[in-house]
Amino acid sequence: MSAPKSARPDLVRPLIWEDDTLYMLDQRVIPAREEWLPMNDYRQVVEGIKDMAVRGAPAIGIAAAYGLALAAKNGDDFAQACADLAASRPTAVNLFWAIHRIQHLADHSFATVLAEAKKIEAEDLEMNYSIGRFGSLLIKNGWNVLTVCNTGSLATAGHGTALGVIRTAHSDGKGIHVWSCETRPRQQGLRLTAYELMKEGIPFHSITDGMAASLMRAGKVDCVIAGADRIARNGDTANKIGTYSLAVLAHHHGLPFYIAAPVSTFDLELADGSGIPIEERHSSEITQIEGVAVAPEGCPVFNPGFDVTPGELITGIITEQGVFEGPYRFGESDFSPVHS
Amino acid sequence: MSAPKSARPDLVRPLIWEDDTLYMLDQRVIPAREEWLPMNDYRQVVEGIKDMAVRGAPAIGIAAAYGLALAAKNGDDFAQACADLAASRPTAVNLFWAIHRIQHLADHSFATVLAEAKKIEAEDLEMNYSIGRFGSLLIKNGWNVLTVCNTGSLATAGHGTALGVIRTAHSDGKGIHVWSCETRPRQQGLRLTAYELMKEGIPFHSITDGMAASLMRAGKVDCVIAGADRIARNGDTANKIGTYSLAVLAHHHGLPFYIAAPVSTFDLELADGSGIPIEERHSSEITQIEGVAVAPEGCPVFNPGFDVTPGELITGIITEQGVFEGPYRFGESDFSPVHS
Repeated sequence: MSAPKSARPDLVRPLIWEDDTLYMLDQRVIPAREEWLPMNDYRQVVEGIKDMAVRGAPAIGIAAAYGLALAAKNGDDFAQACADLAASRPTAVNLFWAIHRIQHLADHSFATVLAEAKKIEAEDLEMNYSIGRFGSLLIKNGWNVLTVCNTGSLATAGHGTALGVIRTAHSDGKGIHVWSCETRPRQQGLRLTAYELMKEGIPFHSITDGMAASLMRAGKVDCVIAGADRIARNGDTANKIGTYSLAVLAHHHGLPFYIAAPVSTFDLELADGSGIPIEERHSSEITQIEGVAVAPEGCPVFNPGFDVTPGELITGIITEQGVFEGPYRFGESDFSPVHS
Repeated sequence: MSAPKSARPDLVRPLIWEDDTLYMLDQRVIPAREEWLPMNDYRQVVEGIKDMAVRGAPAIGIAAAYGLALAAKNGDDFAQACADLAASRPTAVNLFWAIHRIQHLADHSFATVLAEAKKIEAEDLEMNYSIGRFGSLLIKNGWNVLTVCNTGSLATAGHGTALGVIRTAHSDGKGIHVWSCETRPRQQGLRLTAYELMKEGIPFHSITDGMAASLMRAGKVDCVIAGADRIARNGDTANKIGTYSLAVLAHHHGLPFYIAAPVSTFDLELADGSGIPIEERHSSEITQIEGVAVAPEGCPVFNPGFDVTPGELITGIITEQGVFEGPYRFGESDFSPVHS
């Protein structure tokens, strides 16, 4: 598929709106290939989110917003489009937040919906720069920063959340080194975070998920930063499977453990993490890699996509509005209005 | 390659000596295929150990012993054969133990060395049954047992160490269920342990390494059992990378963490685990799966094969001579003579 004209090799972007078409960078084939999927129907966006051509909590929110712009353009049943997009993935709250925001517009004309989708995308990029600035203040010179999954440009409008903090700390000249956890089953760390870090020349090593603990014991990790898919009022945070493991390990080794996420990731309707739905994904994500079987045929697997880290294990939550420290009792009054 | 005549589809064995040939089951291609590598030169055995056609601390000790039988048969420089085999892998002490045992035989005729290799293999099988019996006493009815890597028949003469405990507990009718960690990078859990558990009909699910913590938090794990490559006097235990992570997680969740290993795994020359050499393996183990790149070209990786779990985190060490509990201060007097 041909790339959109505004795609730039030096600037990673997961989504580009161009010529009334949503171009989705197919993250399933990175790093092997950079392929753009042109989408002119919201149902393609639903499939792209479901199949994880686009992933990352903020990015799927933005994709859904552009999906609704396509629905408006094509005169589709708008309520149905909202419902279909909301049903595409269950855990990340940013998806529902973006759909909700567009549902509450004064009208659902193509121009109005598209303008709001562009605004959501532009705001996300600005928020990530702000998260990066707040987060970089927490990073000391020469630190070894451990992260998990991909929380970079590919997971957001650009720059990233946890990886945005790393980007800003690097460009602030802090001389950091990154340990990037592979993040099985889908290997977003090994495939996507490595792809972004190599493009930017940020020093790093990829490791498998089981290696983090021994690096911590050897004094080779100074802090852990992860993203978030949903944060409850008490700070309980759903994020990519394996995040909770890193939080326990950081706690055991006396290391700070940070979450970096925009305010749109908070779900103030939930008192704690027990109410966060955890998506279970297909067994083939574990039993096959690149279409090749790596497990015996019929091997039973359990494949939750996310886990919940209790707020007590989170040293700080880095948002575009500042860094929150525990104990967490989030309410509306903690945040500036996210949008007018 | 044709299977040795004594290979049985219902009985997993990593090594078969037949017609003056060592047949090595190629564990790199399991579960896709069952291929036997016939070996008539000890140098083939060295390569088989280095490239991990055979792996598992007890199994590589047995392979080395048979390698020395081939060296004796062919009239090779025996000291050189011992040195080459000892240099094949650095961490598991069973390798050096087996070579040492054969070096100290009264003579190094083919008949004498082969008889000793067969004895080492037969003793290992008996030890594993004994480990299984002692270990099964620790397992309660209906428990969910979490394990890592492969410590089964493929890693030993047969039956296994940690997986031997699981086998015995299952055949004792305890109604257990197993969580088998994938164990990246080489996926011995997903490929080999699943292969063995499916052959025996032991209920299990494969999970990725990052999932263990959230299962523990959900109350779905009752104990962890792992194998060992080397155990120091204070109980510090080197085992497959990721084992230490599980020990910390078990400790955090108040769960028993057991090591299962034969007495030959103890290295009483080491006061603690800091003296255990940790093998670093090739980056392609992380960046390629089945020969297909899963990381960007040139992605830097760190790939230690093992980690060290401090004795303080180990609830008990299950050996063929009984179960030891901490604090550990192992000395010669703790063990019956391993062989006459």
